[in-house]
Amino acid sequence: MRKVAVIGVGMTMFGKMPERSLVDLGTEAVRAALKDSGVSPKNIQVCYCANYAHIVWCLAQEIGSKVGITNIEMFNVENACAGGSTAFRGVWYAIATGMYDIGLALGVESMTTSSLAGRAITSETDLDGQLGLSMPARAALRMKRHMAKYGTKPEHFAQIAVKNHDHGALNPYAQYKKRFTLEEVLNSRMIAEPLTLYQCCPNSDGAAAVILCAEEKVSQYTSKPVWVAASVLKSPGYLALQEDITLANLTEQCIHEAYEQAGVGPEDLDFVELHDAFTNSELYLYEELGLCPAGEGGRLIDEGATALGGRIPVNPSGGLLAQGHPLSASGVRQICEITWHLRDEVGARQVPGAKVALAQMEGGMVIGIGSASCGIHILTR
Amino acid sequence: MRKVAVIGVGMTMFGKMPERSLVDLGTEAVRAALKDSGVSPKNIQVCYCANYAHIVWCLAQEIGSKVGITNIEMFNVENACAGGSTAFRGVWYAIATGMYDIGLALGVESMTTSSLAGRAITSETDLDGQLGLSMPARAALRMKRHMAKYGTKPEHFAQIAVKNHDHGALNPYAQYKKRFTLEEVLNSRMIAEPLTLYQCCPNSDGAAAVILCAEEKVSQYTSKPVWVAASVLKSPGYLALQEDITLANLTEQCIHEAYEQAGVGPEDLDFVELHDAFTNSELYLYEELGLCPAGEGGRLIDEGATALGGRIPVNPSGGLLAQGHPLSASGVRQICEITWHLRDEVGARQVPGAKVALAQMEGGMVIGIGSASCGIHILTR
Repeated sequence: MRKVAVIGVGMTMFGKMPERSLVDLGTEAVRAALKDSGVSPKNIQVCYCANYAHIVWCLAQEIGSKVGITNIEMFNVENACAGGSTAFRGVWYAIATGMYDIGLALGVESMTTSSLAGRAITSETDLDGQLGLSMPARAALRMKRHMAKYGTKPEHFAQIAVKNHDHGALNPYAQYKKRFTLEEVLNSRMIAEPLTLYQCCPNSDGAAAVILCAEEKVSQYTSKPVWVAASVLKSPGYLALQEDITLANLTEQCIHEAYEQAGVGPEDLDFVELHDAFTNSELYLYEELGLCPAGEGGRLIDEGATALGGRIPVNPSGGLLAQGHPLSASGVRQICEITWHLRDEVGARQVPGAKVALAQMEGGMVIGIGSASCGIHILTR
Repeated sequence: MRKVAVIGVGMTMFGKMPERSLVDLGTEAVRAALKDSGVSPKNIQVCYCANYAHIVWCLAQEIGSKVGITNIEMFNVENACAGGSTAFRGVWYAIATGMYDIGLALGVESMTTSSLAGRAITSETDLDGQLGLSMPARAALRMKRHMAKYGTKPEHFAQIAVKNHDHGALNPYAQYKKRFTLEEVLNSRMIAEPLTLYQCCPNSDGAAAVILCAEEKVSQYTSKPVWVAASVLKSPGYLALQEDITLANLTEQCIHEAYEQAGVGPEDLDFVELHDAFTNSELYLYEELGLCPAGEGGRLIDEGATALGGRIPVNPSGGLLAQGHPLSASGVRQICEITWHLRDEVGARQVPGAKVALAQMEGGMVIGIGSASCGIHILTR
């Protein structure tokens, strides 16, 4: 396998933009990434494009046609919230194995114009979902269990929203750029007790794009490559089959493999971008990713370890909670954020001297309470 | 790159089955392929699943959960009519490059239950489509041009429908199993002059699945492997930019590469399964694939060369016209058909002694009249 680097990134603002089409959003992100990389559209040899919430065919090809990327291999992919991670992995693999030298990973979503907008999302055969075990309900059940098992308090979860909105207020691409107090988060509308509104990520529109390149050609384009040190994509199975729903079941199946590929451990990470669709997701991922022992996510919050300036900042972008969450775009957006940090380019929210970072997304739910896909990437400068 | 073989195939009946869910259809096809291969679900290491016409997330994972395929890498993909070919290529590549030994390619579509059912399909930014240049209209324009340039007659196109329905009448999995006379085809309802109803593929539901395996493990499962001799997936660009719309523009961009990979030419093919969404598609593909010189597709029909028993049978399955066309399933279904022939298992419609066959699908349209994706595979016994 060859070494592969990110040599350019670009994205749109995230937010509610129902006046903008998928093609419009995607085109802006791709143009920004091309410009950032200095790569000509004619030199892109492979493209993976992620989208979920629309029935649209050949979106990669349509966006490609607008920017001059044609006559190449293109995959349109979907893996729920991990769709962007899936697109990134697809391009990485095609380059790492030597088939192509330069490729484009793209995630595009317009939640506000989806026919699903405003509807609880559940599949036709998902009995638990049909009976009301929606995403927030599932999050609430897991919060309750974590509280019962480890003494975690509602304030711990709420503090994650406070932290991520603090970060998001520093991010010009964020859907929200507004700080909230702990009381405001706790007192916002109850969605599924103890989960309040400000602890849930918003519906969002947006796109993000990344250009990847084989080691041999990197120096032609950039002096600041960001290397892909690990790539893992798995469908990790079902919480319903787990003994303990306070965990995401990623450990054995994804995260160990990612650390092994990269030759690092959680103690080597300078920061993490992870899937905080709800505040509890971030907390249980602290434990799953090994940022702290099982049950000590609350303590990590109390210590301020995961805030900017802390020991291991998590979601310096603001995460899904503040940056917004256009499903298939988020996994690629995380790569943009990490790249900017590793190139020391994000100003006020910069993690100083960051050299190693991890991106994690998980997506979908099958049989009601199982995550259906998980993508983890470790990047280094 | 390692050699990769098809070691098991399975599919549902194709037809209008609105009472059946995507998961139901997909599960049946996967179970049939597993049974045919003798592979345990636990030994499947990677899965690509194609679907287009529904907003459904993680379909691969949901179907996998029903049959015991979990905890593996899964991609859900879309490339319009070439989605099934895309899924097949993805699994082939993952095995050929050595990441995995055994994988599952799956295509599932339920056109009758799609929210698109009964609507012309066009993207939000596709101006030509919005103005009425639907798929049948585009086919009709290309027919007219072929007639003007080469003297091809409406009867030539209609004879393709007669032939493919003759073949479909021998196929127990076909949506239609009914023969039509030339007059019946020509006199069926006019859709877009000179294209009549019986020259258009139907809306269909169905699923098809294929198990692929690395050479080293093939002998554990089968004594009749079907080898993948070539795999090409490209987005071949736009008819709007072509000088000649009577061609599909596949030649330089896909088919030459496929023949080169396999080390064969069109004269070496024993039969072909190709994308006959409309009768004219089959005719221009004769020329594009090199089964005859440009302009001589009509003559090939007159000679009966592409009928079962002819020099180079095309669509012994009945093709999309008679077998039916559940979009993302068709590319995988072609692999099933070819596998059965190369194993000498299809009875009345068997191409005797077949050793080499080609599968071709193209999909999507961008900027009104451009095919957006093309997948070509050459298989040998």
